[in-house]
Amino acid sequence: MHSVGEALLTDLYQLTMAQAYFELGMKESAVFELFVRRLPETRRFLLAAGLEPALEYIESLRFTADDIAFLATLGKFRAGFLDYLRSVRFSGSLYALPEGSPFFANEPIVRVSAPILEAQLLESRLINIVHFQTMIASKAARCVIAARGRQLIDFGMRRAHEADAAVFAARAAYLTGFDATATVEAGRRFGIPLSGTLAHSFIEAYDREEQALRSFVLSSPEPTTLLIDTYDSARALQRVIALARELTQSGSEHRIRAIRIDSGDLAAQARMARSALDAHDCRDIRIVLSGSLDEQVIERLVTSNVPVDAFGVGTALGVSADAPALDMAYKLQEYAGKPRRKRSPGKATWPGVKQVFRERAASGEYLCDRVARADERPGGEPLLIEVMRNGRRSVPSPALPALREHCSNEMRALPAQLRELSPAVAPYPVSISDTLQAMAAGIDLQTGAE
Amino acid sequence: MHSVGEALLTDLYQLTMAQAYFELGMKESAVFELFVRRLPETRRFLLAAGLEPALEYIESLRFTADDIAFLATLGKFRAGFLDYLRSVRFSGSLYALPEGSPFFANEPIVRVSAPILEAQLLESRLINIVHFQTMIASKAARCVIAARGRQLIDFGMRRAHEADAAVFAARAAYLTGFDATATVEAGRRFGIPLSGTLAHSFIEAYDREEQALRSFVLSSPEPTTLLIDTYDSARALQRVIALARELTQSGSEHRIRAIRIDSGDLAAQARMARSALDAHDCRDIRIVLSGSLDEQVIERLVTSNVPVDAFGVGTALGVSADAPALDMAYKLQEYAGKPRRKRSPGKATWPGVKQVFRERAASGEYLCDRVARADERPGGEPLLIEVMRNGRRSVPSPALPALREHCSNEMRALPAQLRELSPAVAPYPVSISDTLQAMAAGIDLQTGAE
Repeated sequence: MHSVGEALLTDLYQLTMAQAYFELGMKESAVFELFVRRLPETRRFLLAAGLEPALEYIESLRFTADDIAFLATLGKFRAGFLDYLRSVRFSGSLYALPEGSPFFANEPIVRVSAPILEAQLLESRLINIVHFQTMIASKAARCVIAARGRQLIDFGMRRAHEADAAVFAARAAYLTGFDATATVEAGRRFGIPLSGTLAHSFIEAYDREEQALRSFVLSSPEPTTLLIDTYDSARALQRVIALARELTQSGSEHRIRAIRIDSGDLAAQARMARSALDAHDCRDIRIVLSGSLDEQVIERLVTSNVPVDAFGVGTALGVSADAPALDMAYKLQEYAGKPRRKRSPGKATWPGVKQVFRERAASGEYLCDRVARADERPGGEPLLIEVMRNGRRSVPSPALPALREHCSNEMRALPAQLRELSPAVAPYPVSISDTLQAMAAGIDLQTGAE
Repeated sequence: MHSVGEALLTDLYQLTMAQAYFELGMKESAVFELFVRRLPETRRFLLAAGLEPALEYIESLRFTADDIAFLATLGKFRAGFLDYLRSVRFSGSLYALPEGSPFFANEPIVRVSAPILEAQLLESRLINIVHFQTMIASKAARCVIAARGRQLIDFGMRRAHEADAAVFAARAAYLTGFDATATVEAGRRFGIPLSGTLAHSFIEAYDREEQALRSFVLSSPEPTTLLIDTYDSARALQRVIALARELTQSGSEHRIRAIRIDSGDLAAQARMARSALDAHDCRDIRIVLSGSLDEQVIERLVTSNVPVDAFGVGTALGVSADAPALDMAYKLQEYAGKPRRKRSPGKATWPGVKQVFRERAASGEYLCDRVARADERPGGEPLLIEVMRNGRRSVPSPALPALREHCSNEMRALPAQLRELSPAVAPYPVSISDTLQAMAAGIDLQTGAE
């Protein structure tokens, strides 16, 4: 889906500005940084994601003949500029935070250096890609924390915001520690394990629930998960148990792997089910819970020791329901070698080319971050690494399982208080270096005195 | 974007169920209905949207050789079923509510009749398409109501949930009464007017704001909109006024069409700007406001008579921030000629093949809706119309401007209390016919006695 009309997936003003840069001969190098101004109240940290698809976009960015022909119809662009657009390619460099890394407000996670026209052209779509997956990964991380090792399955496709949101949400969730997705296309595209067996409609299509369950199990080439909440879960559970015992006793190759409960009092039903299953020699039948789950509900179920093996999380994950957008921006920090700064109320930025340095304890646990000029050495590990130089990747694309492993390690290094689900009492310490603060004041004096 | 891997944009269980229907020879006709169970607290009505793209999806649904090859790798599907999938096409019928029509909880907006396997295959993607655009149209409608005739521009692309959300949000907003979008691809795809001129980065790239404004205006082939809030809006406004007067006096062909204010106290700055512009013979320069706008802020600005000509609405529209998902479902209502019903707590459905009848006053204003069996005649106009028969459209595709006109007319017919932005005190009256209620009770007795 990331191939058709990609260059026109942008805001019109990127193109009108590009034309002005072109006409005015503004060819100096610019540095833009992508960052989040403020964390949503319900997030103690964010997780970077979406870099790999963003790099694919940047590497392949070009205006096709059809793109140019459409732009020519608008009456807003001169022929010379449109002709230039035909051959424009991204020739700059990128530093970025690896996917699966936690970060905080005001920390750049992507830094783009390129002739200003090229850097400007990336803005809308770069935000669009990185914002979405970062938001989903940050939500998924909370589910992973809440589930404490129980399996998590992404059920979000149907209410995700259109097609590619569903596919990339599955990617972001898997990277963060989800175990599987129901979205088939995400399985194909990214090799994510797929999960799913039947919906209530199958059961309703039969006059008798018992016959529906039996037919489904006997027609399935692999072990099945059976819904028990279509009509009355206690009665459905008895039917599942009878069927499971019959399958075992008859030596059938068919097996019931799990039951799923999708509505009502999940805790009570799961307890009832576990106890009945165990009492009837069905200890190996697992319990899957779903239906309006989010990290808060998951945490309550887990901490009250409800017997559950896996959670299916749908809408709350797929749209990041409690925080469906992040205050992410892509801002000019330097042009022609001079630091730049916007001073709009509530939207002022720290100027200059920056790096984030993270201080860790001997155990690896995060102690604090420092945002400084890229050429400062304030102590701590620099987090942004070079990922593209002269328009080409400077490191090989990491495989998704490697990113998943990295994310898991980094989440273990988070201080305990960041792993709480409630809003943060004290934010994680992120300092802005004295040099950056002095630079900001210097620019303010300059533009103020103008 | 709606063409690659479309058939696998589904939940895995649709395919495992399809295999079971196939293996078990379940070929009878099923009726599924798409509806919203409950309105979000902050919505008094919803607006149907997304039907046209949904019909395109249904008409073109097929499994490619690559799709089948991928499914074969999963070890979940038998060769006979995969072979059948190669030739499966949707052969059924659809009734639907025209796009741009208001609707309420429990009212079907799409009704699908087809062999159960085919109807089941549509579920995930049909919800995915119609849910998103309906949600955005319903949010956009509130902005249209709040703006009371002022122009509205969609600025939502960057924080929309990935690429197609941005493009289809622009479509849904335009259909609802927005005037333009900044998303270039939406302009190309749907012929929506495009809007946009420059961002703060252009101004910051100059050492002097005055020179930035002047350069941009003089390099632009058409009248421009200038940002005044990069550093200090009062000072920037003076620069704009001086530049505008200079352009007029020198007989230049270049023109400043508008100023845009994107941060800070929008009301105070707009009042200051209007008064200064008028005092200096710049009455034709318009004022555009943007920056974290939503329908509540727009309403406050408009009702306090802030001088404003247009609003740019971004994230709040593009992700429907206060209600980023609807409780939309697609449920089996009839199979093999018998009504069906799920009884899961909080998710019970009204069974049978239904129609919605709307009663209007002589003025056209809505009085009440009745949900009844499709063959009942309870009075009022039937809202669902046939849009597809035997897998082919039965009516021509309406053009987007025609849908926009229809939407505008229908919104005018809404009772005044539905056009308030605050949560509804009393919901719009929607009754369920006695026949449906009796059918539901009948099924409950049957499945209870089983």
